[in-house]
Amino acid sequence: MNLSLRITDVLLNVKSPYQDILLVETGEYGRTLLLDGAIQITERDEFCYSEMMAHVALCSHPEPKRVLIVGGGDGGVLREVLRHKSVEKATLIDIDEEVINASKKFLPTISVALDDPRADVKPMDAMVYIKAAKEEFDVAIVDSTDPVEFAAGLFQSPFYRDIHNALKKDGMVVAQTESPFTDKNVVREAFREMSSVFPIVRMYWGAVPTYPSGMWTYTIGSKTADPTAPVHPVPEGTKYYTPAIHRACFILPPFVSDLLK
Amino acid sequence: MNLSLRITDVLLNVKSPYQDILLVETGEYGRTLLLDGAIQITERDEFCYSEMMAHVALCSHPEPKRVLIVGGGDGGVLREVLRHKSVEKATLIDIDEEVINASKKFLPTISVALDDPRADVKPMDAMVYIKAAKEEFDVAIVDSTDPVEFAAGLFQSPFYRDIHNALKKDGMVVAQTESPFTDKNVVREAFREMSSVFPIVRMYWGAVPTYPSGMWTYTIGSKTADPTAPVHPVPEGTKYYTPAIHRACFILPPFVSDLLK
Repeated sequence: MNLSLRITDVLLNVKSPYQDILLVETGEYGRTLLLDGAIQITERDEFCYSEMMAHVALCSHPEPKRVLIVGGGDGGVLREVLRHKSVEKATLIDIDEEVINASKKFLPTISVALDDPRADVKPMDAMVYIKAAKEEFDVAIVDSTDPVEFAAGLFQSPFYRDIHNALKKDGMVVAQTESPFTDKNVVREAFREMSSVFPIVRMYWGAVPTYPSGMWTYTIGSKTADPTAPVHPVPEGTKYYTPAIHRACFILPPFVSDLLK
Repeated sequence: MNLSLRITDVLLNVKSPYQDILLVETGEYGRTLLLDGAIQITERDEFCYSEMMAHVALCSHPEPKRVLIVGGGDGGVLREVLRHKSVEKATLIDIDEEVINASKKFLPTISVALDDPRADVKPMDAMVYIKAAKEEFDVAIVDSTDPVEFAAGLFQSPFYRDIHNALKKDGMVVAQTESPFTDKNVVREAFREMSSVFPIVRMYWGAVPTYPSGMWTYTIGSKTADPTAPVHPVPEGTKYYTPAIHRACFILPPFVSDLLK
């Protein structure tokens, strides 16, 4: 299935060392970032994704102070992470500096936090960075592109093992794990791979209109704490996430939970 | 935003007195029915919609014996309704007999219940039929097309008033009420119109990948019973609906609940 947006203007169309970066203006969904032709984020619906990537882990971790974001160069997830006052520092590692720069220039409402004093933005290979980090982070958020080429390793157990080592003793990791309609195998394997490393692993889901099928999964791994129950209040002004949504999003339809057996 | 399916074969392309009926074979989503160019149902994801249209009301109504389906000529919702053993008779009123016939011919897994002895299928104008019905039904399900032309009245209070009169004293109505992303006004107005007639009105939502934005709302009105809590076991073999999904689907993200204020 394809999804098409009416493009009214092309703002940027470049080839970085890693991918094709296309930034367009659309009538209906606002400005939209595409990497290698796949929609990454639109101004209109990014809150669905950014909020669910950030708040489920940050509201259920006992005390999230140090956060790692892998990918996410657009800044949407970072913006939500920094709405939590407990967070002292958020380190964002995106392999592609040109994505970061494009977002700063063209997507101001999404990239707003990239210049926050609590943000530590490093354009480099996250797999290299993670290997060197030991018990540094409370929460790691893997905001990757689809599991192809340089991003494929971000869905596999060696990477989750490195993440495990980079997390403190009560750490949590959350990863976007694609659509249960269009990417059954990714959903299944990401869950299995993370389960081979973390003692507590749960899947949750939400709507993201501009992603394939509009139904998206997230997989959360935890060393000790229960990720399904929020223990902190949600930052004000969320449009998708609430404590009630937090509890509800772990309820999977059978056609999704069957993938995890 | 447009959504496109790869069509591998056109099975039927006719103009009925009411609408253009197109039935195509697609690789990814199986056989697909389009009315006036809008996807109504695909073999692959119809369970998401059909189950959520039928089971929320039927599992929370005290004792559903007589069910009315307005529209739904494809038979998907009827099939789910008849999985409830308590249902003695389900009356399906679709204005377009050609939709019913096309579904019987080309969509056997969806239309399977149209010939069930408990099904009473009447090709006629539901608005005319409803006006004559008094306290006959336990549950009414409004499985309409988008609110344009002949279907526009199905989202308005005079129709909900007729439905109210056609329902028994503990009756419930449920209607598909479009996407909170692409049809904000329909969502808002359908809820308001139903609330002007029924004392208890709640909105719930679910994923339907091939509908615009993939996020769909349903509005349920009840004369007496609480629609948010299932009181009957779910029929076996559902792929989307479960009692836990029933309770969770009423939890709305703020950008949806804000539409109802």
